[in-house]
Amino acid sequence: MPIQSATAFAPATVGNVGIGFDILGHTFPAIGDRVRAIRTAHPGVRIREITGIAADLPVEAARNTAGKAVLSLVESQALPFGIELAIEKGIPLGSGLGGSAASAVAAVVAANELLNQPLTRLELLKHAIQGEAVASGSLHADNISPSLFGGLVLTVGIDNPRIKQIPVPSGIRCVLVHPQFYLSTREARAMLNRDLPLSDVVWQTANLAGFLAGCYTNDLDLIRGAFEDVLIEPQRAGLIPGFAEVKRSAMEEGALGCSISGAGPSVFAWALESQSQAICAAMVRAFVRQGLACDQWIAPIGQEGARVVERQ
Amino acid sequence: MPIQSATAFAPATVGNVGIGFDILGHTFPAIGDRVRAIRTAHPGVRIREITGIAADLPVEAARNTAGKAVLSLVESQALPFGIELAIEKGIPLGSGLGGSAASAVAAVVAANELLNQPLTRLELLKHAIQGEAVASGSLHADNISPSLFGGLVLTVGIDNPRIKQIPVPSGIRCVLVHPQFYLSTREARAMLNRDLPLSDVVWQTANLAGFLAGCYTNDLDLIRGAFEDVLIEPQRAGLIPGFAEVKRSAMEEGALGCSISGAGPSVFAWALESQSQAICAAMVRAFVRQGLACDQWIAPIGQEGARVVERQ
Repeated sequence: MPIQSATAFAPATVGNVGIGFDILGHTFPAIGDRVRAIRTAHPGVRIREITGIAADLPVEAARNTAGKAVLSLVESQALPFGIELAIEKGIPLGSGLGGSAASAVAAVVAANELLNQPLTRLELLKHAIQGEAVASGSLHADNISPSLFGGLVLTVGIDNPRIKQIPVPSGIRCVLVHPQFYLSTREARAMLNRDLPLSDVVWQTANLAGFLAGCYTNDLDLIRGAFEDVLIEPQRAGLIPGFAEVKRSAMEEGALGCSISGAGPSVFAWALESQSQAICAAMVRAFVRQGLACDQWIAPIGQEGARVVERQ
Repeated sequence: MPIQSATAFAPATVGNVGIGFDILGHTFPAIGDRVRAIRTAHPGVRIREITGIAADLPVEAARNTAGKAVLSLVESQALPFGIELAIEKGIPLGSGLGGSAASAVAAVVAANELLNQPLTRLELLKHAIQGEAVASGSLHADNISPSLFGGLVLTVGIDNPRIKQIPVPSGIRCVLVHPQFYLSTREARAMLNRDLPLSDVVWQTANLAGFLAGCYTNDLDLIRGAFEDVLIEPQRAGLIPGFAEVKRSAMEEGALGCSISGAGPSVFAWALESQSQAICAAMVRAFVRQGLACDQWIAPIGQEGARVVERQ
């Protein structure tokens, strides 16, 4: 008897990781979204329900990131059955924690379980990217890839994406502070300058390359020296009240780097485990001085991506 | 008795390596410059002679890359003696093979032998960068660092440079074809757009990151997929007659990547050893069709940088 329903969990993610705009991201496994895919007799894709901490989302499949991703998958397969989706949001909406990506990823991973011939993760990636585009208005994989594959993930290319999991030095923790206000990814993208100065681009590429070389060689000094986004962060910092102070607080407490998670407003820092509590507390205090309440988490950068948690 | 003179060899280099404008370079040990530094009673730095294949260079120390680099070194030391330099050029002038960098590097490495307390390579780097700036009009280290340290080298930062030697997959050869005409690095820099489109920057950073990840993990498929300069090469290709055809010829013969060496006009390709002869021949044929005579070399990307070859 074929599987009637499957539920998948997909972790939150830190997109860009500061120096890798649109190409780099890492999992943040402390939170995530769950999607249950249910086989139905009627062809097509429908959203059955949306629950959890962010229920105010489109229920029309083509306008919902999870729905659109599974529509893309279904249209590539000519399935003899339909799929209904039950979405349970664990990631705050508009937080910069990859919530739309996690829903899209969890949805395709769950739906994939219903297929007679499951697709590869690389094929699922392409469908999930289509879903993510509904929310962000652009095709980019810096949240999708780490949520699907796990770890610190580089995506090269969109039409024919190549995925590389980058090693993270052991003992690193990610501190995440989410000031409780909504920031639209679409707007945070639209505000960006379309042209960038060559000199800043050279600086940023040096930082990106240094960061990656530091990760591959366990060189914390190089990671710290290179962990600075000079292209995007300065443009978006003004969207987050107190950002400069939050960042300064984190760096003064010993963070390896601190920047905006995805399009914000969440701010993340990489830290040694021993310093992560103090860094987190300092960041939260800086936000509170702005009158902003915060969610806060400290977690290792997990190596595990989306996974099926239930089959019936 | 103190050393009276020392001679150093510094290898040619491929700057930028396509995807790493101003930050990445690798040695090309088939050719290089030699500089002899001679202790003299008169303080200061003088150029005694310039010999070899490119003798038409400034003999005033402050205007000569080797002289300026050693002036920078001498001024930091308050030496009780002077230094004369005998420069033997093995790298064609204006070829895009890092000739000015090699002269500056060989000069500081040779001069360093005359000091009672020799400087570290990282200190020598800073002085050599000052010399290189005389020729190129800007402070950049993508030729200096590999000529000094050896191998495929990333430089992060200029004022406080951090150096990282990146592993190169075994069996890779660099094919270098130098069409015999002069291209000014200064002019090839001045022509570049000061602003770059964000979308191209994202593409380029993905390629840079993919290239590095491919080198660290011996992933030739990823290197090939990412080895494409979408920022600088399109702007400079028009300076090199037949460049598009030269590149196409290399890629059709199986090159991993092909781009402009430094500011050009030399064109380099990375290749498997077994294909390197055919790639080189095809590139040369394409230049010859443009009526351009060529120098050509095939060499591994050596791991050895500048070295002292004689002491007296």
